[in-house]
Amino acid sequence: MARTIVVKVGGGEGISLAHVAESFSAIVASGARCVLVHGGSHETNVVSERLGIPARTITSPSGHVSRRTDRATLDVFEMVYCGRVNKTLVELLRRRGVDAVGLSGIDGGLWRGVRKTAIRSVEDGRTVLIRDDLSGRVEGVDAALLAMLIEAGRVPVLTPPAVTDDGVAINVDADRAAAATAAALGADELLLLSNVEGVRRDPGDPGSLIREVGAAGIDAVRASARGRMKNKVLAAEEAIAGGVGRVVIGSALGANAINRALAGAGTVFEGVAA
Amino acid sequence: MARTIVVKVGGGEGISLAHVAESFSAIVASGARCVLVHGGSHETNVVSERLGIPARTITSPSGHVSRRTDRATLDVFEMVYCGRVNKTLVELLRRRGVDAVGLSGIDGGLWRGVRKTAIRSVEDGRTVLIRDDLSGRVEGVDAALLAMLIEAGRVPVLTPPAVTDDGVAINVDADRAAAATAAALGADELLLLSNVEGVRRDPGDPGSLIREVGAAGIDAVRASARGRMKNKVLAAEEAIAGGVGRVVIGSALGANAINRALAGAGTVFEGVAA
Repeated sequence: MARTIVVKVGGGEGISLAHVAESFSAIVASGARCVLVHGGSHETNVVSERLGIPARTITSPSGHVSRRTDRATLDVFEMVYCGRVNKTLVELLRRRGVDAVGLSGIDGGLWRGVRKTAIRSVEDGRTVLIRDDLSGRVEGVDAALLAMLIEAGRVPVLTPPAVTDDGVAINVDADRAAAATAAALGADELLLLSNVEGVRRDPGDPGSLIREVGAAGIDAVRASARGRMKNKVLAAEEAIAGGVGRVVIGSALGANAINRALAGAGTVFEGVAA
Repeated sequence: MARTIVVKVGGGEGISLAHVAESFSAIVASGARCVLVHGGSHETNVVSERLGIPARTITSPSGHVSRRTDRATLDVFEMVYCGRVNKTLVELLRRRGVDAVGLSGIDGGLWRGVRKTAIRSVEDGRTVLIRDDLSGRVEGVDAALLAMLIEAGRVPVLTPPAVTDDGVAINVDADRAAAATAAALGADELLLLSNVEGVRRDPGDPGSLIREVGAAGIDAVRASARGRMKNKVLAAEEAIAGGVGRVVIGSALGANAINRALAGAGTVFEGVAA
């Protein structure tokens, strides 16, 4: 059977959707069974600002940073992730002959999740509890819907939000959603691409990129990850634990970024004990 | 086999998505094979205004009014139609136990269309030619994708844009797209619902509603339709010509609007020579 590859491309500043479509269409053309997962954080911040709804973040006591998602924020989030970014990618992929089908995690209950009931947030040095946040994590993936589309020659293009069992849309981390998707599909490869090249031992030193997690040891990688990179390392570990053969945390910048990551550019998780 | 019903709900002011979801979920629960098509014009105008991109219209020499769709407008259009309105409807339907899957006409090439190369527009009494408009009409529907979803127990929730064969997203009339969808599915019923109750002989007189097109004669109905209603009558005629058993042009306002239209409230096209 053809290789199954799940590619997650972040929505950070500087990432070109045209480059993503070009590079992704090349791996589709190679005959692999492909799924694209995308973010849209930078564009959401831009649109939020223009609409007068400034983006806010939550910082957990352990330093994890996430988007504060009230209902007004989720509305903008859906406009940008499910509307603007998803449909632009689908359009660009169709121009390259890829039969792309864009879906959010809400559609068909594709990404079933649980909502966080209370989130601890550090604000001005004090820890407060937030109870109305519309965020959570993916606990189940409808692999049957994805497999049905893939077998019919379609290429799923997926994006948050996810949805709870009782039908509430929730913001979820797209890296971990991509990891859950790769595990549910029994994928051979998961690429987690953003505007950074991988995990560095020293965030400020490009020469300190960790190339092979197997060699460096997972503890060293966990200890080196900062900010958003913590999520990516966690997502990579979850994918490996879920049976994915190889995970690469790498760059989505420039032409052919996906092919480069597939060839091993970035931080490679392979042969790592789950 | 179960009845196939395509419901189009407009995006005009005053239409409640919660009411639409409630009423539509009742016909899904009745066992019919259902497809929901929606617009989003009013919300698009609101968001455009907030983003500083005012909505503009084109008036054809025959008086037909449509949205002027340049690239910036299409971007907002996709945010609202494919993001905000589509995902809100999918979320509301899931809360009522409907396994809704939201798709635009771009996804999977569901609505294949041709772009208008030049549009005549009457501006300040002069007729000008517009060549860069991203609009057109649906010429083909991927019924196989819809049937695959419906057979799997999913309920498609569809929205413009459509897409050209070379992968360019185009704004299309959602009433006529719904008619093409109903014809492609061999639907028994098409409901075209908006914030008006049907076709009136005299637009200003609620008592002049034409209840049965068969009795009134299609020429009288065509002559009575004004503005946006011209499109709906054209869509109804296209659906009947395409083999749809019955079309109702009716109201989407209030609770149970879809059930009322299904029971014949509005202007009913049945037994009309195509």
